[in-house]
Amino acid sequence: MRLQASCDMNLIADADCPTVGMLRPSSGAAQWLVSESCYFDPPVPTTEYVDMFGNLCQRFVVPQGRMRIRVDVVMDTEAVIAVEPDAPATPIEQVPDAALQFLLQSRYCPSDRMEDRARAIVAGVAPGYAQVEAIRAWIHGNLSYRYGVSDAATDALDTLASGAGVCRDFAHVGLSLCRALKIPARMVVGYLYQLDPMDMHAWFEAFVGGRWYTFDATQAAPRGGRIVVAYGRDAADVAFLSNYGPLNTERLKVQVELHTNAVPEPLPD
Amino acid sequence: MRLQASCDMNLIADADCPTVGMLRPSSGAAQWLVSESCYFDPPVPTTEYVDMFGNLCQRFVVPQGRMRIRVDVVMDTEAVIAVEPDAPATPIEQVPDAALQFLLQSRYCPSDRMEDRARAIVAGVAPGYAQVEAIRAWIHGNLSYRYGVSDAATDALDTLASGAGVCRDFAHVGLSLCRALKIPARMVVGYLYQLDPMDMHAWFEAFVGGRWYTFDATQAAPRGGRIVVAYGRDAADVAFLSNYGPLNTERLKVQVELHTNAVPEPLPD
Amino acid sequence: MRLQASCDMNLIADADCPTVGMLRPSSGAAQWLVSESCYFDPPVPTTEYVDMFGNLCQRFVVPQGRMRIRVDVVMDTEAVIAVEPDAPATPIEQVPDAALQFLLQSRYCPSDRMEDRARAIVAGVAPGYAQVEAIRAWIHGNLSYRYGVSDAATDALDTLASGAGVCRDFAHVGLSLCRALKIPARMVVGYLYQLDPMDMHAWFEAFVGGRWYTFDATQAAPRGGRIVVAYGRDAADVAFLSNYGPLNTERLKVQVELHTNAVPEPLPD
Amino acid sequence: MRLQASCDMNLIADADCPTVGMLRPSSGAAQWLVSESCYFDPPVPTTEYVDMFGNLCQRFVVPQGRMRIRVDVVMDTEAVIAVEPDAPATPIEQVPDAALQFLLQSRYCPSDRMEDRARAIVAGVAPGYAQVEAIRAWIHGNLSYRYGVSDAATDALDTLASGAGVCRDFAHVGLSLCRALKIPARMVVGYLYQLDPMDMHAWFEAFVGGRWYTFDATQAAPRGGRIVVAYGRDAADVAFLSNYGPLNTERLKVQVELHTNAVPEPLPD
Repeated sequence: MRLQASCDMNLIADADCPTVGMLRPSSGAAQWLVSESCYFDPPVPTTEYVDMFGNLCQRFVVPQGRMRIRVDVVMDTEAVIAVEPDAPATPIEQVPDAALQFLLQSRYCPSDRMEDRARAIVAGVAPGYAQVEAIRAWIHGNLSYRYGVSDAATDALDTLASGAGVCRDFAHVGLSLCRALKIPARMVVGYLYQLDPMDMHAWFEAFVGGRWYTFDATQAAPRGGRIVVAYGRDAADVAFLSNYGPLNTERLKVQVELHTNAVPEPLPD
Repeated sequence: MRLQASCDMNLIADADCPTVGMLRPSSGAAQWLVSESCYFDPPVPTTEYVDMFGNLCQRFVVPQGRMRIRVDVVMDTEAVIAVEPDAPATPIEQVPDAALQFLLQSRYCPSDRMEDRARAIVAGVAPGYAQVEAIRAWIHGNLSYRYGVSDAATDALDTLASGAGVCRDFAHVGLSLCRALKIPARMVVGYLYQLDPMDMHAWFEAFVGGRWYTFDATQAAPRGGRIVVAYGRDAADVAFLSNYGPLNTERLKVQVELHTNAVPEPLPD
Repeated sequence: MRLQASCDMNLIADADCPTVGMLRPSSGAAQWLVSESCYFDPPVPTTEYVDMFGNLCQRFVVPQGRMRIRVDVVMDTEAVIAVEPDAPATPIEQVPDAALQFLLQSRYCPSDRMEDRARAIVAGVAPGYAQVEAIRAWIHGNLSYRYGVSDAATDALDTLASGAGVCRDFAHVGLSLCRALKIPARMVVGYLYQLDPMDMHAWFEAFVGGRWYTFDATQAAPRGGRIVVAYGRDAADVAFLSNYGPLNTERLKVQVELHTNAVPEPLPD
Repeated sequence: MRLQASCDMNLIADADCPTVGMLRPSSGAAQWLVSESCYFDPPVPTTEYVDMFGNLCQRFVVPQGRMRIRVDVVMDTEAVIAVEPDAPATPIEQVPDAALQFLLQSRYCPSDRMEDRARAIVAGVAPGYAQVEAIRAWIHGNLSYRYGVSDAATDALDTLASGAGVCRDFAHVGLSLCRALKIPARMVVGYLYQLDPMDMHAWFEAFVGGRWYTFDATQAAPRGGRIVVAYGRDAADVAFLSNYGPLNTERLKVQVELHTNAVPEPLPD
């Protein structure tokens, strides 16, 4: 399916604020970028680099005062995501080199302290996709989706303790429980079609049966229509904006719609 | 300056034709990508990778019959390129690791056979920028810009022998003469504002005075307004389309204009 | 100075144990690898990859039973490390792309929760090298070096609370306090000449004054004679051995000595 | 099989000569590096980088006068190389991204001008491994191995014209003919056990049947016992020493032997 997503935000900086953005998606395993734009108002000098996860990162200084950022993207993506209940665990020896890092504990995913919890949740479930799905369903059934419970310091243990959180927290719990079982798992941030209420979103992927599968503990059932903006170990790696100074988001508006599929007219001779 | 460039082409394939494109520019040292799109008609499954020069490469199969490709880009780029007649040669020991490969001979740039010629052209000229400019000026003054003299097999020695060629050939001669003098030089393909007649273009960069400078032997004087699409050692690395089957370009139309600088309207609440 | 370092260990696995090692140093910014070897007994099939920090990683399966690993290295390294009390802070805008990740919070370095503590320690100290040195000296003066207080779950907050730890814990505290002040800081593991008692070691580097400087909170004063084996955000990234199964280290013996500088005899004609 | 290879050379420089070496092999697809050393006499400051093919490259300045370089390596490698006469051609669409560059023409392999010759040699032979073997056998049967016919400027067309060359020339012809048939092919330099006369060696690999296979047109039959030092498109990419000043090799001695498999004694407690 071809989706058109937009993100429009107004920022306020009390002083010039060096910032790193992860605003721009690129083509990837399950998506093809048709069109993309990123407007800054006022325009500011910006450079871009690719981080070690392959994400495009934008470096710029938000000038003192107000700034608007507008990102638009048209992406071909899967309408229906792969579901494979019988996919077996991938033995560690067969995990690709580049996926090994997603077995490690990280800031918001202290998986080294969650093995008992993970074992309890997947008790009696066959290793592989089914265990990850058991984790996802457990989170969906046992944690409450609620704003205001968590903040930028909340890790997966905190969320298990409070019993509530938002998409980012749900993803952290899923990532941690998978890694505790030696299943590589990575954080994903991006857009989800028909997310309600519409906003930027976070979910996770797990490596089983020789490939990455998508899991989203905030949803009742598997759903496609996803645009990946960035991958990482956890939220520390994939912040939409990392500001190194005082920066506030005054307004953030996200929109995801079906694209009309129209192709631009030919250039005149 | 903010430029809007478009490339529109019609292809004809006698049979399904596996193809690698280098159609999509990205942000880089001297340019910031504001907006970009790439439409295929009919749409075909496409994947993308980054080659070893950092170029975005698109892989797809042109289906038997007709196919249209339309690329649009809005880019912030330098209106005036850097000119530094006094920039000295960069000693080999100080050339960055990543630039060393641009000292090597390549398919269209047999620089190992052109040292005498290079020495003759720069006789009496101070090492560094001035030598590269002497080479550029020599090419501009001594070779004729003419279609039909060269083809896909023509290398820099052939062009020196024939005394004529197109932008690609001029670049190959410039690259070869620089490398023969142990000056790193790389091929660039992209768009040039107000190029006449308008088309995709090729030029080269040389590493002197500790950085890359732009040189274009097809022009009478240094000109900015350039959008880089790809870098490489020579034309073999930066083909707009590399087809592994019978593929003909029926029509290719290129347009480069000043952009209006308008920012999209805010999304409604 | 030319050092010869060796690490010899006996492992016991209750069952075949997939393992990732970071056993082999390579040449780098401040070291030149003269000679290196890595023997497994019994020999096991091993592959190697380079992780996203540039570390060489070895993948192999420790077979059920006993296994011995012996690593030897001869390295040219700095006898005296750079000390620059006046080096200023590097503004975030000037931090190299690749160093930005070392500003992020991580598993053992929850720097997002340590800004107040960091500010208190560096109160009145000029930004840059001097602040990092103030942090290093504070750790050295206020934390006790003691085995048995910490384990694989201990993070920098835990160490501050307990007031004691080992080299890895000291490094985590230093890393966290630097990052809390927006100073890029990275974990280092390797060898230190004349460390007492001799063992594998851990310290940290901070990016100030436009380059990386070495800091070691376990030592009373700056000391050279270091061989870097791996870099990372924290201990999660640079484990000497990451085992995905039951694996015990029965014996670990480390030796670091001055090398004789002898060059092998010429091959006979 | 475990091989021990050594290379010992004496260089003479008329003046300080910036040099890039590819002297040090690393672990790879078909080899595991057990031990390695690289001694310079006199010792000179050296840095190392990884080029875009993954080769380790050493940068140093050969000081005016004499310099000795001694490289030793112990490598586990395949005693018998894979031979698969029925391996089919890999369709271009299925060639891995990283292998696509090995379809391109290059300095010594003007494959774009050799399709007719290639088609004639493989007439009637099934696409895939069998065609590459037909090419290899044709070279072995139709070209003479002879020193003094070729030099650093000789490309594959020159070698076909002269009918003679050395291992490097044979490899260039093989690479060119494969690429002309749209078979990815890459240059390899390294050591070959029992090569006669013993020297550094060059051969090529072709990508068919979904993997790289080894081919050596200088040998009568497939032989293992190979240590890969570097990969590239052709000899321009994999020079043992690239000197940017006057440098002569006074003596070069190569030795390859079976290794005794002894493991160093344990360190004393």
